Amino acid sequence: MSDSDTDDAVMRATHRALCDRGYACVTMQDIADEWGKSKAALHYHYDTKEALLVAYLDYLLERFQARVSEEATGRPAERLSGFLDAAFAHADSETDGGFRTAILEIKAQAPYNDAFRERLSAFDSFMCETIADIVADGVEQGQFHDVDPEEVASFVVAAIDGAHTRDVTLDSSTERVRNELEAYLDARLRTEETA
Amino acid sequence: MSDSDTDDAVMRATHRALCDRGYACVTMQDIADEWGKSKAALHYHYDTKEALLVAYLDYLLERFQARVSEEATGRPAERLSGFLDAAFAHADSETDGGFRTAILEIKAQAPYNDAFRERLSAFDSFMCETIADIVADGVEQGQFHDVDPEEVASFVVAAIDGAHTRDVTLDSSTERVRNELEAYLDARLRTEETA
Repeated sequence: MSDSDTDDAVMRATHRALCDRGYACVTMQDIADEWGKSKAALHYHYDTKEALLVAYLDYLLERFQARVSEEATGRPAERLSGFLDAAFAHADSETDGGFRTAILEIKAQAPYNDAFRERLSAFDSFMCETIADIVADGVEQGQFHDVDPEEVASFVVAAIDGAHTRDVTLDSSTERVRNELEAYLDARLRTEETA
Repeated sequence: MSDSDTDDAVMRATHRALCDRGYACVTMQDIADEWGKSKAALHYHYDTKEALLVAYLDYLLERFQARVSEEATGRPAERLSGFLDAAFAHADSETDGGFRTAILEIKAQAPYNDAFRERLSAFDSFMCETIADIVADGVEQGQFHDVDPEEVASFVVAAIDGAHTRDVTLDSSTERVRNELEAYLDARLRTEETA
């Protein structure tokens, strides 16, 4: 196997083990078991559970970026809608409950862990910058009202984040939030011409 | 001291210990130390750290409800704005960083802990119902557009929740989100007459 095949297999094993066991409980042994190799082999690639989880966060961001490139295409309004499809893709699926719980646990660790914080910050920046770019394009093309793209972006990212947290903590579907997020974007951004 | 004085003193001690040490690390001993009494005396009132933290969540909800009653008064638009004042009261204060971190840790525990989940759910329901009531009143009085009050409420609560999480995880100020939340409420709710 090439290095990149190995990395990919370890990342998929990490994903499965994390979804099953949660952040606090998952061990290097659990991940090695999912990978089908020894714990020593896993330690050869990643010194610690923390280093492995940091690599896993990088892997999630890369996948999310690829998904956004694929889905957020077309006119500004369509790109926004495609972005929301990518952002809500993991929500409301039975099998993804463990995943969303693990991510929330990692977020709660961020104040104690600079490496986690840095990766979560990269994720947040990517989301904010992507939305701000789309909104700025829409404003420039006269399709959106003249709003502050960065303020809109922070707000949209906060609403997505909150929808995911409530989904984990309260088992509250993200559907309502997504519906109202679309209504917000309509009311706040679209000029008569594009409505 | 009356029972209620004792309860109040224990809750304030719990708050300080939790802010200093975080949810995972705080011990009954830390809380007893803050209270200025023995660990045995603390155990006389609360069997376990979990039971104490559940009582603490009830205490937070009661305080939040009192604050909302105080601030969310007047016409529907003013009540909404007062509600946001109460919801963002803990944000962006240096000393409250530990508090917000501890709450996020407790949220991340909710999938593993029914008692935490139940209290967080009571908190969320109170927020959603309060906002939905205000919006419904505004619609009825012709001051707001005819929106679905519950969908608006879920969305506002998600945005508040996300603003608090990003504040903890990324040290990102809640100010932008709050500004855009007000702009959303203006664009989505207010009729010409009230704008």
